Amino acid sequence: MSTGRLIGVGVGPGDPELITLKAMRALNEADVIAHFAKAGRQSQSRTIVAPHLRAGVTELPLQFPVTTELPKCSNDYRAAIRDFYDGAAAAIAAHLSAERAVAVICEGDPLFYGSYMHLHARLAPRFATEIVAGITGMSGCWSAAGMPIAQGDDVFTVLPATLPEGELARRLADADAAVVMKIGRHLPKLRRALARSGQLDRAIYVERGTMTDAKMIPLATKRDDDAPYFAVVLVPGWEQRP
Amino acid sequence: MSTGRLIGVGVGPGDPELITLKAMRALNEADVIAHFAKAGRQSQSRTIVAPHLRAGVTELPLQFPVTTELPKCSNDYRAAIRDFYDGAAAAIAAHLSAERAVAVICEGDPLFYGSYMHLHARLAPRFATEIVAGITGMSGCWSAAGMPIAQGDDVFTVLPATLPEGELARRLADADAAVVMKIGRHLPKLRRALARSGQLDRAIYVERGTMTDAKMIPLATKRDDDAPYFAVVLVPGWEQRP
Repeated sequence: MSTGRLIGVGVGPGDPELITLKAMRALNEADVIAHFAKAGRQSQSRTIVAPHLRAGVTELPLQFPVTTELPKCSNDYRAAIRDFYDGAAAAIAAHLSAERAVAVICEGDPLFYGSYMHLHARLAPRFATEIVAGITGMSGCWSAAGMPIAQGDDVFTVLPATLPEGELARRLADADAAVVMKIGRHLPKLRRALARSGQLDRAIYVERGTMTDAKMIPLATKRDDDAPYFAVVLVPGWEQRP
Repeated sequence: MSTGRLIGVGVGPGDPELITLKAMRALNEADVIAHFAKAGRQSQSRTIVAPHLRAGVTELPLQFPVTTELPKCSNDYRAAIRDFYDGAAAAIAAHLSAERAVAVICEGDPLFYGSYMHLHARLAPRFATEIVAGITGMSGCWSAAGMPIAQGDDVFTVLPATLPEGELARRLADADAAVVMKIGRHLPKLRRALARSGQLDRAIYVERGTMTDAKMIPLATKRDDDAPYFAVVLVPGWEQRP
């Protein structure tokens, strides 16, 4: 093993104050700061840590390829994404082999639905790694909403809205508390699934959870079907106990 | 409403560096710092923030009653716990009515299986409240283990080990990734449930996840049935994708 060090650094859900002391130290100690960005967009994680970046630190932007023309289940899409992660891992490995510490900054928590995991899987067998846990996006949402989510012996589940309507309804009915992610164009289907599971009346719709322009409303009062991909729906499980 | 302010402050899973800048500011601005503790024990959340406490700040310890002689499902147990939270809420309300800012420091995240929720439910209707999200214990565990937990369209679930064996096995088999909490004396039952769901070989047993004396081993290699109540078992859902 080289003495290079890979650090997956969670920087939280958006509010720059929801970063940990440990993440601040990692940013301060790293030789290289790497960050993912959608093609042609600013990196969200970089925006979050901008006030904390050391002047003159080496940055390594990792720009996702443009894949909008490819169906997500196609082999071409998979190959483009695999090639992207292979290339990103190679760029990081070059720094690690030169014994540098590379911090990959990640929105939310690095190992919970994070892109960082693809780099970790490629590099952890060859280099020392460390993870700095981060506040998840969902935790930012229920905190901003002041919404107790789960308590005691509650079963809590996280579901992607991409699931078929029947499966969403079944899984929602089977859990005490739930967070549904990746809403986007799946909102009408999710609304029907929540009606079937009897939970529509307590579901809360959240957009941009920890931003200053956050929007939180009971889903039942939302009149349109417009929702960004990163909107979430919270189904709180907890009622006041003893 | 009085101008008193109640702040539920997540202080993370144990590592004093896994506290956020926002929590630090809340500690610094609060007139009163309240913390829960088991009877006769030091408050865990207070231990975590001890290096960050302002000298001379007013503290309000909230000591759980001794209930070891009462069955958890009994009316007497429920009444003792309810009386305790009523009393704790009243003590905090006295400070809030005097227009003080009261920070209740909480291990992990205040609204995710946290005792703070019982105070929030009692006080939020009468006073301004704010939540500072914290790193959850489970996130601390999978980060310390360097264990990618969920990715893409994975269904992720949190289960209490108190559930019956058949229900544990069914729910484990139905999820892509899982965290099982409250292990303690339920470990043999959980082991059988994981064997039934076909997941025993990938389950990781974690004790004291973010402490310096953390213990993490594949559950299949654990020879004894000893487990503290706060041990967790991680069932990672993610395999290397593209």
